[in-house]
Amino acid sequence: MKLPKPISSLIEYFERLPGIGPKTAQRLTFFLLHFPQEELEKFSESLVGLKKGTKLCSICKNVTEYDICSVCGDPTREKRLIAVVSHPLDAFALEKTNYKGVYHVLHGIIDPLNNIGPEEIFIKELLDRLGSLISENSFDSVDAMKTIEVILAMNTNMEGESTAMYIAKLIRERGIGSDKVKITRIARGLPVGGDIEYADDITLSRALDGRLEI
Amino acid sequence: MKLPKPISSLIEYFERLPGIGPKTAQRLTFFLLHFPQEELEKFSESLVGLKKGTKLCSICKNVTEYDICSVCGDPTREKRLIAVVSHPLDAFALEKTNYKGVYHVLHGIIDPLNNIGPEEIFIKELLDRLGSLISENSFDSVDAMKTIEVILAMNTNMEGESTAMYIAKLIRERGIGSDKVKITRIARGLPVGGDIEYADDITLSRALDGRLEI
Repeated sequence: MKLPKPISSLIEYFERLPGIGPKTAQRLTFFLLHFPQEELEKFSESLVGLKKGTKLCSICKNVTEYDICSVCGDPTREKRLIAVVSHPLDAFALEKTNYKGVYHVLHGIIDPLNNIGPEEIFIKELLDRLGSLISENSFDSVDAMKTIEVILAMNTNMEGESTAMYIAKLIRERGIGSDKVKITRIARGLPVGGDIEYADDITLSRALDGRLEI
Repeated sequence: MKLPKPISSLIEYFERLPGIGPKTAQRLTFFLLHFPQEELEKFSESLVGLKKGTKLCSICKNVTEYDICSVCGDPTREKRLIAVVSHPLDAFALEKTNYKGVYHVLHGIIDPLNNIGPEEIFIKELLDRLGSLISENSFDSVDAMKTIEVILAMNTNMEGESTAMYIAKLIRERGIGSDKVKITRIARGLPVGGDIEYADDITLSRALDGRLEI
């Protein structure tokens, strides 16, 4: 018994998605067989429209429907506080905190083992953006006093740490507003609700290093 | 920050699939953003074509591209040995054994808690099929000798067991070829490689009841 072609071809597409193995792909496909045809058509339209209806924000490179995303276009957001994240979903997660700055989305992380070098992600665009923020500055006497803060908010795994180090080094080497740009990294420590007993030693020593006065 | 409409609408569709929660739906959608547009279009075509390109086999109700599925159309398969399964994927799983009979796909299981009664699944079609197999029989002297075997191959959970009991009762009550139809149920016992120590007591007592001479 071979599966009918329309079924096996949809299974193949599902299998190409991350975290979906052959069994799950089969289950999803057979589940969709019970969907009304018009729902399948709407689903398929949103697939086709996914990329057609979205573009990258010309400032922060986040995914948006317009030329400038809702965060960059919001006058109440602090434009001199930039969180650099690797993916749009990371910015989305930070939005759930009371963060009031803006973002810069790299769309990836430097990962030589998977052939992703610094040129593949939006690092150059970050440097250009910082450069123009500083030059704008010279004409604007009120903002000129404020420093720019770049928060390196990548994951705290090996690729995230090395990408953060690389970007920090690059900003410093290029001497981009050396006295006006402050570079920070999100804190590494115990997650809230975490057990000291079960924390790994690297996390624990980071938590000690990053201790704050209360 | 709100997610762009084309993205949130695709996330919503993924969320409706079984076993896919909000986080996974987001991850799948953002993964697809990196798909080439033509691949997205092919994916969407297979979604639309899923139901258009398939129908139910007129004999066994399995999903097929033609009027009669490859199993029912195969002259080497034993047509008087019918495995009744609840879903097409169950037939697909049985095909990996050396089973040489045919199938009957119910497309569901009797589950009163979820409002699925006997009329919602292809039980009537099974009875009709058995009825016509028996009447065909009277004209065919060679096959007339062979009994028909109905293997009730539903899951061994509560819904599967009660559906099996219901179908067996129905076949017997209707007196469909009472001496010519043998009704069997797949064996319940320890899975191969299983530990007696960790088996639950119901499985273990079923394994004892179904012991075979070696």
